[in-house]
Amino acid sequence: VSEATQAPPAQANRQFLLAERPQGVPTADTFTLTSGAVPEPRESEVVVKTLYLSLDPAMRMWMNEGRSYIEPVAVGEVMRAIGLGQVTGSRHPGLAEGDYVTGLLGAQQFATLPGDQLNKIDPELAPLPVHLSALGMTGMSAYFGLLDVGQPNEGETVVVSAAAGAVGSVAGQIAKIKGCRVIGIAGGPHKCRFVTDELGFDAAIDYKSENVAERLQELCPERVDVYFDNVGGEVLDAVLANLAGGARVVISGAISQYNSAQPKGPANYMALAVDRARMQGFIVTDYVPRFGEAVRDISAWIADGRLRSDEQIVEGFDNFPAALLKLFDGQNRGKLILEVAKA
Amino acid sequence: VSEATQAPPAQANRQFLLAERPQGVPTADTFTLTSGAVPEPRESEVVVKTLYLSLDPAMRMWMNEGRSYIEPVAVGEVMRAIGLGQVTGSRHPGLAEGDYVTGLLGAQQFATLPGDQLNKIDPELAPLPVHLSALGMTGMSAYFGLLDVGQPNEGETVVVSAAAGAVGSVAGQIAKIKGCRVIGIAGGPHKCRFVTDELGFDAAIDYKSENVAERLQELCPERVDVYFDNVGGEVLDAVLANLAGGARVVISGAISQYNSAQPKGPANYMALAVDRARMQGFIVTDYVPRFGEAVRDISAWIADGRLRSDEQIVEGFDNFPAALLKLFDGQNRGKLILEVAKA
Repeated sequence: VSEATQAPPAQANRQFLLAERPQGVPTADTFTLTSGAVPEPRESEVVVKTLYLSLDPAMRMWMNEGRSYIEPVAVGEVMRAIGLGQVTGSRHPGLAEGDYVTGLLGAQQFATLPGDQLNKIDPELAPLPVHLSALGMTGMSAYFGLLDVGQPNEGETVVVSAAAGAVGSVAGQIAKIKGCRVIGIAGGPHKCRFVTDELGFDAAIDYKSENVAERLQELCPERVDVYFDNVGGEVLDAVLANLAGGARVVISGAISQYNSAQPKGPANYMALAVDRARMQGFIVTDYVPRFGEAVRDISAWIADGRLRSDEQIVEGFDNFPAALLKLFDGQNRGKLILEVAKA
Repeated sequence: VSEATQAPPAQANRQFLLAERPQGVPTADTFTLTSGAVPEPRESEVVVKTLYLSLDPAMRMWMNEGRSYIEPVAVGEVMRAIGLGQVTGSRHPGLAEGDYVTGLLGAQQFATLPGDQLNKIDPELAPLPVHLSALGMTGMSAYFGLLDVGQPNEGETVVVSAAAGAVGSVAGQIAKIKGCRVIGIAGGPHKCRFVTDELGFDAAIDYKSENVAERLQELCPERVDVYFDNVGGEVLDAVLANLAGGARVVISGAISQYNSAQPKGPANYMALAVDRARMQGFIVTDYVPRFGEAVRDISAWIADGRLRSDEQIVEGFDNFPAALLKLFDGQNRGKLILEVAKA
């Protein structure tokens, strides 16, 4: 037998595979934890040790069959996830051992992939998790969704849903920086207080205990110029009923609908005609060529204390499935991140 | 007694009043037919004899309580309606007896109203009913909705619903004139043949007998760049599932929902994000300052045979309620007009 002469087993690589397509909220059966080898990097590839994984509502959509802006994750594949890691081996001229990178590392402890698919980050700019939060796709979504799609003008009224969440909290703060009046919609008194007291929004509406449409009428007698929507459902309908003429509705997400087999559309969409308004979506990766501009602005705002990046960090790779569910239980505040290994 | 010395009774003016707000489709109880006097014109007012009334889906919305782009018709008031008539008396310097005008004449045989609220038309430009059709609000909606909101480019694929209807038939023809590939969606084989054979659309989908989403996939493998929607409901969802990147969805109307107490929104609206698309409404009267431009273009297209204005004329003022219902029974083709009096 030849076992004795074999090389020592390659570094173990624990991975969460998509075991089945969930119906509704993912369950214990959605993922399988396996252990594989770390593939050796080929020419122009690198090996990255995962330090942090970004937990995003979009991941729920990636598990669904059917056409979307990106291929669904195949059953049996490593679950797709954005992550931040450190290069442990490189055959790419632009990346060296020790470099910090972000990219689609997947729900695994090590990723071997082309260096061109990674984004080298500057760890001096902000603490590492912030590079997955206000300086990551989350911040990019808030920045380009609000500014490029929503196009708020100084003095206008901007409403943001999931205002205590990862994208909403950044979008609302950017709207404040741009001189808008900002109303946040969030679930529960703690989140609402966070939005006004910590993030500096002008007001907050607790959709769990208040009538959103009525509160908007009180808070925005001149109605809503820009609505940055992360939730869909009844909240979207309530804001549609309160649009100002020429309003812009930014479709950033629809977390209230992602786990639903029968998603509901906004019954009040004819407000788009009544109010000469538009509703528009975007895919953040379309803005990759302009990410530098956003990183420059956001890191400057963080540095001078005008923008706060808020992360909730769950420790331990094995907690990936449970941590992911926190996105949908209404308890999470700010950017949800899994710490896979200590930096 | 003084009756004998009174002036002869003023010209009788038969009027349809809104008797009650309908739930769902209007019924025999929705309107009351009464007879009143024709008020004498005051300074700057004119008296207009109604010749034609425009029958429009928007009239159903005007009967509803609640906020819209225009005040609802009050119960007991003359039903609001756009009409074309002839001036029979004028105290307005810009209008003389015999002039033809369009405006909000209301569902009555005579209207006395400020001359400034009327639009003098040139009867030489086209037959009178065409001034309520392709040269009226109908044509203006098609022209500005398609060109200003939809912004089609030459070679793009444009889909129009209610394609045999008043607005849709004009919108689709304008899209053809602008060099687009045009697919119409209509109900039944007669309308579909009309759309392709008479209006020159490239193809038609019969939503009553065909699966709209599947047919769109076959007919538009490169998907839909502009969707001009007059119907809402399932057809809107089917087109949303087939949008091209950067698509524009023009919300012109939602006739499938107007009589519903529980209107449904488009469940597939998240396609706006997936396809980086926008959905936008408009109110045609916002374009009043630019109507001249549209009338110039459309009358030229009619004159050189490139655009066909299609009217279905119902005779007799008393048929107003029954004629209005034809908008909602799916039988109507082209612009529905009530002839109130012979010109």
